[in-house]
Amino acid sequence: MTGEYLDRLRAKAPTLHYIGNYVSANDCANLILACGAFPVMADDPSEAVEIAARTDALVLNLGIYAPRKARAMLRAGRAANRRGIPVTLDPVGAGASHLRLAAAQRLLREVRFAAIRGNAAEITALARGNFDQRGVESAAETAPEPAEELARRWGTTVVMSGRRDVVTDGRITYFAENGHAMMRRVSGAGCMLSAAVGAFIGANSDAPREAALAACCAWGRCGEIARERLGAADGNAAYRNFIIDAMDRMDGRALEEGAKYVLFRG
Amino acid sequence: MTGEYLDRLRAKAPTLHYIGNYVSANDCANLILACGAFPVMADDPSEAVEIAARTDALVLNLGIYAPRKARAMLRAGRAANRRGIPVTLDPVGAGASHLRLAAAQRLLREVRFAAIRGNAAEITALARGNFDQRGVESAAETAPEPAEELARRWGTTVVMSGRRDVVTDGRITYFAENGHAMMRRVSGAGCMLSAAVGAFIGANSDAPREAALAACCAWGRCGEIARERLGAADGNAAYRNFIIDAMDRMDGRALEEGAKYVLFRG
Amino acid sequence: MTGEYLDRLRAKAPTLHYIGNYVSANDCANLILACGAFPVMADDPSEAVEIAARTDALVLNLGIYAPRKARAMLRAGRAANRRGIPVTLDPVGAGASHLRLAAAQRLLREVRFAAIRGNAAEITALARGNFDQRGVESAAETAPEPAEELARRWGTTVVMSGRRDVVTDGRITYFAENGHAMMRRVSGAGCMLSAAVGAFIGANSDAPREAALAACCAWGRCGEIARERLGAADGNAAYRNFIIDAMDRMDGRALEEGAKYVLFRG
Repeated sequence: MTGEYLDRLRAKAPTLHYIGNYVSANDCANLILACGAFPVMADDPSEAVEIAARTDALVLNLGIYAPRKARAMLRAGRAANRRGIPVTLDPVGAGASHLRLAAAQRLLREVRFAAIRGNAAEITALARGNFDQRGVESAAETAPEPAEELARRWGTTVVMSGRRDVVTDGRITYFAENGHAMMRRVSGAGCMLSAAVGAFIGANSDAPREAALAACCAWGRCGEIARERLGAADGNAAYRNFIIDAMDRMDGRALEEGAKYVLFRG
Repeated sequence: MTGEYLDRLRAKAPTLHYIGNYVSANDCANLILACGAFPVMADDPSEAVEIAARTDALVLNLGIYAPRKARAMLRAGRAANRRGIPVTLDPVGAGASHLRLAAAQRLLREVRFAAIRGNAAEITALARGNFDQRGVESAAETAPEPAEELARRWGTTVVMSGRRDVVTDGRITYFAENGHAMMRRVSGAGCMLSAAVGAFIGANSDAPREAALAACCAWGRCGEIARERLGAADGNAAYRNFIIDAMDRMDGRALEEGAKYVLFRG
Repeated sequence: MTGEYLDRLRAKAPTLHYIGNYVSANDCANLILACGAFPVMADDPSEAVEIAARTDALVLNLGIYAPRKARAMLRAGRAANRRGIPVTLDPVGAGASHLRLAAAQRLLREVRFAAIRGNAAEITALARGNFDQRGVESAAETAPEPAEELARRWGTTVVMSGRRDVVTDGRITYFAENGHAMMRRVSGAGCMLSAAVGAFIGANSDAPREAALAACCAWGRCGEIARERLGAADGNAAYRNFIIDAMDRMDGRALEEGAKYVLFRG
């Protein structure tokens, strides 16, 4: 099932408006290109609406929070909703900072999201309005309930990434099981997964749940392929490059063969 | 002809004040070092004049537009003009956003540029005051007229990059023909070419047209060399690194031998 | 002696609040992960205090100066001091811009630092209140007096990096002698060393002088290991990745065996 979503992404080559953060922006841009989409990186409020009006999908990433960028996200998100293009949210740090949690909650109230991708701390904070103290990358949990609650609350698809990824729209829930623990040693790995989710959904907006599942399997499979390439002297810098390279080289057939997921509920 | 410009760049090792964007800033800094120049990255209006006063060249890149950065560009540009150091403009997105087009036009009115480097959509928008809808990296065109018009209008050298690059001062026009299509799959490739143009002109300000031509040939040749290094598992992340590596390893003789260009007019 | 500091860093895996700059932020984040610490990148004044309250150490990097970021640094620095977590300063450009020098001096007056890491121009400017004209990476000096003066003036550990690194608390002074000249061709190399110093001190706050020395030896040793990996086609892009990879693969024993330093005074 997953392979067709990648094939469609490559065929459609959607343009992705990306409002992100300076730590992972370059890796995300190259990953978006590797996925087959085209990134337009712009984060100023004064051009958010115009750019959202010319793109096929929007990704909002709360890393390196700034009030100016939050305003741009609200404007771009509303413009995307008016045009009916899918919007993906990465609530970076919503599980560790009251400011980020409040910013993410405001976005949820004012923008309709096709998908939300976060780790367990972030998704739990958004679902339940409070957060634990373990920071932006807490121990991965696989209990899917917070993700399912959040998905139902806002009528969206939620990806809760961790040792295995939960992908759910609140009714149907998958576990995506590709990936490697070393991916946690790559800065911006979560941001890149969110960018992939945004790209897959950008070309498959009629099936956001399955498109998000395909993105998780593709991303995790890239982590596995990259792990196999690592030589004795290679570390996390090589690994990051190998993951992006793997996405660039992957096709629908390879994804279909390598994807590992199970239907958990639905 | 091209090799001597690289040799001079390596011999002079100019310091380059670079006001850019966070997506490509790191790659541009490493490319500038690979070219043999030294980057000083700073974008705050309050220090723009002081830094422009201590450097040998200036590059202004409109990616990730912000009003604060636009102010810094105006101040740094005027200071550079007063000191007579060459200024290069990369009007990122001027072919897709009215805000960027207006910002670029204001820079053109208030700052004298040694060179402008953009894609066909950007150069056409600047030359003719309107823009098409295809976004920041539209299909490459090789009709040189918009570049020639823009060069004559502002008395500058224009590089319009695409399947082949147009390099012109409005009287004499070259086509630079090195490069590989995969360079379009590297985020920030245009920004890096502009950084190279700024570095080459920084050491060869008496001959901006030929220095820009040499930069285009060098950059394109790096794309060819990098393409030959790609193994079966390598993708756009490896390719980006290989391109920068190729610039780091290139010398004037290798550039002279590998450069492909033709005189089109003049 | 150095190896134990790396072992402790890996065992404690401290969380590092990092306020940096967009040119080197991604490399610094991956280097921090390679060291065994966990980066939390955030630079907005409105969340600086909250994030500083949940982390084990703080690093302030003045690259790409902005007033907003300077406010965040003051707030985060004071919050870190109240909690007793170690703060490291990288006064990027304090040797070339009056604005940066003033910003660094204000930080010194208002925040207590466990360590300061700069090049000779930056450390000399901070120690003596004036600066030479050679820019952000002036010729490396090894006369340790400016570093020792600065360390005594503010009761801190100072790392003055160059052909060999001076590490001093004003009473005891080491020369750290690992490294390779090619590291100067990697953008953000100084920022990455400062990030490493912050990480080592984050896990060894009872011995900042020796932790900083261990960080210098580790960083320099990574430069040596990476140099040995370079093939004929590799340049500064490969070198950057190899350095981070070397840190990721290094353990306390390898550092202990490879570290080269001498006690100069004390």
